[in-house]
Amino acid sequence: MPRIVLGIEYDGSAYAGWQWQAGKRTLQGELQAALSKIAAEPVTVHCAGRTDAGVHALEQIVHFDCEVPRDLRAWLMGGNSQLPDDIRIIWVKLAIGDFHARYSAIARFYRYVILNRAMKSALLRTQATWCYQPLDADKMHEAAQHLIGEHDFSSFRAQGCQSKSPNRLMHFIDVYRQDDRVIIDICANAFLHHMVRNIAGVLIEIGSGKQPVDWTAQLLAIKDRAQAAMTAPPHGLHLGGVFYPDCYGIAKHPLFNKLPVDARRFD
Amino acid sequence: MPRIVLGIEYDGSAYAGWQWQAGKRTLQGELQAALSKIAAEPVTVHCAGRTDAGVHALEQIVHFDCEVPRDLRAWLMGGNSQLPDDIRIIWVKLAIGDFHARYSAIARFYRYVILNRAMKSALLRTQATWCYQPLDADKMHEAAQHLIGEHDFSSFRAQGCQSKSPNRLMHFIDVYRQDDRVIIDICANAFLHHMVRNIAGVLIEIGSGKQPVDWTAQLLAIKDRAQAAMTAPPHGLHLGGVFYPDCYGIAKHPLFNKLPVDARRFD
Repeated sequence: MPRIVLGIEYDGSAYAGWQWQAGKRTLQGELQAALSKIAAEPVTVHCAGRTDAGVHALEQIVHFDCEVPRDLRAWLMGGNSQLPDDIRIIWVKLAIGDFHARYSAIARFYRYVILNRAMKSALLRTQATWCYQPLDADKMHEAAQHLIGEHDFSSFRAQGCQSKSPNRLMHFIDVYRQDDRVIIDICANAFLHHMVRNIAGVLIEIGSGKQPVDWTAQLLAIKDRAQAAMTAPPHGLHLGGVFYPDCYGIAKHPLFNKLPVDARRFD
Repeated sequence: MPRIVLGIEYDGSAYAGWQWQAGKRTLQGELQAALSKIAAEPVTVHCAGRTDAGVHALEQIVHFDCEVPRDLRAWLMGGNSQLPDDIRIIWVKLAIGDFHARYSAIARFYRYVILNRAMKSALLRTQATWCYQPLDADKMHEAAQHLIGEHDFSSFRAQGCQSKSPNRLMHFIDVYRQDDRVIIDICANAFLHHMVRNIAGVLIEIGSGKQPVDWTAQLLAIKDRAQAAMTAPPHGLHLGGVFYPDCYGIAKHPLFNKLPVDARRFD
């Protein structure tokens, strides 16, 4: 059965997260409804990374299987015509080989955006987290470097996280300032539940001077979620892109050029 | 009577423009309602540049007169607590001398944002104009340079424009690409109705190759609105900042550093 791959951008503000839930407006629900109309039969989609309520995607990767023959353009243009304008299909292609949006992914990149100024923003209100305390982005970057490599991220894991292992391989974290924004670009093989938002919460405490730069290292060693900072709010978070082996022919976000040559799935 | 000056940011998507209109949701209406609650008496605000429906502001300048004694912090924090979150007061200060938000302004800067890629965006849907035809930003920049200086902008003026003179002094226009966006930064002493959006419409035609680079010069000479391009949509447009003489102590957007030393009000 042909497998179709989609690149999806969305504004998560109006949604109860990615995953389908009865009676709730979710991204998976909207996408399945739109594609099912084009297919004229029920379609089930699988994504690379399930995002929480309020979290956005610059490029989420999705696949679905469908026996109904449709031109790729029909999925793209027809799908978009059925979707609300806060969800857009950016591209469509046929899957190569055994491609799977989730299981074939080698790495994910998330971007966390903090608006760092005295007053809240009208224009960025749903796409950045506001922090009025001045943040030292250089300190935050230095602190983040303790997290690079393979670690037990128990201190950064949501209580309800269902992953079997608390270990993840962190490829890079870059924290930098752009005018009145502080941006955290973070790339790992995979992420635990709330891991990016928990890391962002810890880095904000360090950037505002409430905790020392080596707090990240201390928290890694303690392996206790209760000792770390608050989970940073969802609306600053964007799934930036997903990295697959070259053989699948999925275009890569330029940020993945920073991945080490031996970047591989953790298992 | 004390005069208070405010810097305001807004997302214009939900508003029928700046100006108060009976029975319509406008930015002036919302701001007056919020400030009147703080003052406990009716307040009338004056802005530097009235924006149309759907147009945003990075920094609109507003003033009002009020005899009720209030701490500046009360206007800032109290005003924001009364406003919807798509309008934010960024700063508040006491006016110096005969300051007037509109009449003291020497120059205005607008930013027009075009998303230039094959598919629409979910995240930028209300804050950029989508153009799928590839645009040559260098050509657009070159074409825009014909508009610099004092000219009769009749070809770029809305039919209903109520200004006495069609002449304006254009200080600079910079067109540049940022990833998949083409940005037009445009600064003049003042603007005719729809002037920025009409210039954007013309530059888009030039950038997509439908018109030659010197079309801007031709249109200036013709002085006929009917010969020019469509008015570009409002949601790509942002009032970026307003420039006042130093004596008023209003902080300047860094872009105004590009203004010529002899920049002056056209009259």
